[in-house]
Amino acid sequence: MTEKELFLKVAERVKELRTEKGMSQQELAGLIDFEKSNMSRFEAGGTNPTIATLYKIAQALDVTLSELLMIE
Amino acid sequence: MTEKELFLKVAERVKELRTEKGMSQQELAGLIDFEKSNMSRFEAGGTNPTIATLYKIAQALDVTLSELLMIE
Repeated sequence: MTEKELFLKVAERVKELRTEKGMSQQELAGLIDFEKSNMSRFEAGGTNPTIATLYKIAQALDVTLSELLMIE
Repeated sequence: MTEKELFLKVAERVKELRTEKGMSQQELAGLIDFEKSNMSRFEAGGTNPTIATLYKIAQALDVTLSELLMIE
């Protein structure tokens, strides 16, 4: 998988978990101290997130990092 | 878990998988195009790796990202 595909798969997984919980992009952005614009760029697969950011997202979505990254 | 603990847990997990495969730090660094010094700083828990770096490490260690990040 290319880096571009990787970023997109991570983004789609976050969106899947977020919508399953009935959470808006704005709410998730607020929980992890993200600007709304950053959140939408992230969910468009346009960023290369760090483990620290992914951990905050996993906590906000109440899943483990391992569950968050079940993308293969 | 604090960010420091997170970086350390990820580092310990990579070291655990690397040594299980009988791979040296130098060999892993070579496989993912890392300087040896970066690899040792990473395994000391001193860095906040991106998903792109973690994916390269997972591939080099022949595990999925989800398996790599089973740290909770």
